[in-house]
Amino acid sequence: MDIKIPRGTQDIKPGDAEKWQFVEQKAHEICARYNYKEIRTPVFEHTELFQRGVGETTDIVQKEMYTFTDLGDRSLTLRPEGTASVVRSFVENKLYGQAEQPVKLYYTGPMFRYERPQSGRMRQFVQFGIEALGSEDPAVDAEVMALAMDFYEELGLSGLKLVINSLGDQESRKAHREALVNHFEPRISEFCTDCQERLHTNPLRILDCKTDAAHELMHNAPSILDYLSEASTQYFEEVKSLLDEMGVAYVVDDTLVRGLDYYNSTAFEIMLEGEGFGAISTLSGGGRYNGLVEELGGPATPGIGFAMSIERLLMALESQGIELPVNAGLDVYMVTMGEAADRKGSVLLHQLRKAGLKADKDYLGRKPKAQFKDADRKQADITLILGDQELEAGVINVKYMASGEQEEVAIEQLAERLTGGY
Amino acid sequence: MDIKIPRGTQDIKPGDAEKWQFVEQKAHEICARYNYKEIRTPVFEHTELFQRGVGETTDIVQKEMYTFTDLGDRSLTLRPEGTASVVRSFVENKLYGQAEQPVKLYYTGPMFRYERPQSGRMRQFVQFGIEALGSEDPAVDAEVMALAMDFYEELGLSGLKLVINSLGDQESRKAHREALVNHFEPRISEFCTDCQERLHTNPLRILDCKTDAAHELMHNAPSILDYLSEASTQYFEEVKSLLDEMGVAYVVDDTLVRGLDYYNSTAFEIMLEGEGFGAISTLSGGGRYNGLVEELGGPATPGIGFAMSIERLLMALESQGIELPVNAGLDVYMVTMGEAADRKGSVLLHQLRKAGLKADKDYLGRKPKAQFKDADRKQADITLILGDQELEAGVINVKYMASGEQEEVAIEQLAERLTGGY
Repeated sequence: MDIKIPRGTQDIKPGDAEKWQFVEQKAHEICARYNYKEIRTPVFEHTELFQRGVGETTDIVQKEMYTFTDLGDRSLTLRPEGTASVVRSFVENKLYGQAEQPVKLYYTGPMFRYERPQSGRMRQFVQFGIEALGSEDPAVDAEVMALAMDFYEELGLSGLKLVINSLGDQESRKAHREALVNHFEPRISEFCTDCQERLHTNPLRILDCKTDAAHELMHNAPSILDYLSEASTQYFEEVKSLLDEMGVAYVVDDTLVRGLDYYNSTAFEIMLEGEGFGAISTLSGGGRYNGLVEELGGPATPGIGFAMSIERLLMALESQGIELPVNAGLDVYMVTMGEAADRKGSVLLHQLRKAGLKADKDYLGRKPKAQFKDADRKQADITLILGDQELEAGVINVKYMASGEQEEVAIEQLAERLTGGY
Repeated sequence: MDIKIPRGTQDIKPGDAEKWQFVEQKAHEICARYNYKEIRTPVFEHTELFQRGVGETTDIVQKEMYTFTDLGDRSLTLRPEGTASVVRSFVENKLYGQAEQPVKLYYTGPMFRYERPQSGRMRQFVQFGIEALGSEDPAVDAEVMALAMDFYEELGLSGLKLVINSLGDQESRKAHREALVNHFEPRISEFCTDCQERLHTNPLRILDCKTDAAHELMHNAPSILDYLSEASTQYFEEVKSLLDEMGVAYVVDDTLVRGLDYYNSTAFEIMLEGEGFGAISTLSGGGRYNGLVEELGGPATPGIGFAMSIERLLMALESQGIELPVNAGLDVYMVTMGEAADRKGSVLLHQLRKAGLKADKDYLGRKPKAQFKDADRKQADITLILGDQELEAGVINVKYMASGEQEEVAIEQLAERLTGGY
């Protein structure tokens, strides 16, 4: 019996892995430009972290977590998202006390949710996310969104749509919550049981319900934007005005919500317009969570961030026919003829690799013709040809594949010659 | 109550994460030079994979695995090492059938073993490993060891010791196994219960026992090298001779074993000599596993690889006082004075970042003096100074920190000026 890969996970094989490397390298670069620093947290955390940091009432915590007991009888959970872990680390390592403030962090890595696998939704998936902790300057909100948009644009994506909303502060949310309860309560029996539960635990999440999306009460539900406090209104205006001046296009959508209690103020999603991308068009989402650090045991600290799926990004790039500039070809391929030449070829190859060249040879004892074919397949810029005769004469044949030109080089000078060292 | 990081895991924080990036980038580079391609497999696999691919009788499988049942009632295990997963992927994706042979792969990523945490031994740790599948050319053995040694040397490590051995082919191992049983059986009652079990399941592993390391029978146990078949002897000689010619120094140690049934032929470890590195001096280990692909359901395919811990590598670098060339400083810091200048500063900052510069500013409404201090802390090469007065005049003050020189630049030409665009 063969052992298969677990359902909902994938192998990223050569040919694809280079695209992942390219995109991740781009993430490192753009974060360097925006001065976000990488943080790496463990793949699993104490289960309680996500119960508190993602929220007991969320689908993630209720239905989708990989939770298990370790040999020391601890309840651990494979992280379903990155923010809770980053905030846990921020609190535990007292990063709120360091000299550089705000603390601007990013991460990339695997996340895990037990969902029904479908295109763009895997049980193990990779997220790139950033978190800015310690500032409530609207310029940070604008910066976070600009970074995400720049990242996508620099990779070549078009048809991007930045959708923003404000969830307001505590005061705004309280007023809005009351309005929502008053709106839905009289006819809540027409809604799904999940929504009936949500009515008093978290009525905002009713707006997010897929089952009842078509119910008429959904269309004329009270808008958060009508309940924003003066401070929240002013903050949101400032964020929009900065985006305007920065030339970052957006649309406001007052139905965009993030259903966790400590999410507030700015919320956003980036979608891909147009067809060819499948059922899921959301590339990333983010927002402010000014209550989360305190919830996880730290001092009151504002925070904002986003997370994006790398799988979906790569799907989006593919749907738009964008080829990433990935170069997998060799600099040099060593063709050898005869046993002594073959051994010498291995030794020379090692020298060339040490000198910085991407170099390979045959390891299956193939005939020269098959070796030349292998050199082609590996897109070698240069083919070296070494027979026992050349070996005796202390030379090697160098063939430049683009021009077809050949030259004989003394074996001792090969590495120098090929690295342009003379 | 605060939620802590799980025992035996660590956060890699800014300041350290850059070192990880550097080392991983180096791994990508060296693999490109040796023509190994990245593969990424899931963090968990069906438990059976490791039972078969690592071995039922190993400590890893018996005591150290993070095994759990998912919501679909599958037994899954967080991977304790990388080889079994890579071979599973090789078989499942039929990579043995692709045109390019041998298939040369590498991986980096987190592995998980439930052990008592200590310096250099974490429950979650990161391995960089390579696997070459499909060739039994001794030059591949030499290449695999050379790659590992080059990697360490290029990072600046000294005092490296490559220890090699041959475990022989089936014939050699059978003869050696009989000799081991004959050697230990008469006095096996003096050994630990683990060793007593090993006597007939896998006597080779007795040599690896920590409990009985001092027993006199350990010192004069039959050496595998005395039982190598002619083919195995010749193969091992060829590997050594290639290492000699390549200038890769090594020592032969016939007590170096890898206790899995399908490991055979070349085995090696790389150790760090000298003090200051703690109790663990092994940096990496590897060897041939010509039976593993078949064991996991594929066609008979030779294989060889190594795995190394990145944590130990970084510890080794630190123990030798090696500073990695990590540059975390900014190109530009924007100091602003006044509300309008501050907003304009955010917009200009965005332009500079889009133009490729690493740039940041204050987001806490700090006074200019504190902003200059922040610029220092962030090691900015250039400080920009924008007040409401400059804003009105359409200029900005550019201060080059190394020379102390200043100039006034038109705001509209700033990005061009700083990126050398005129």
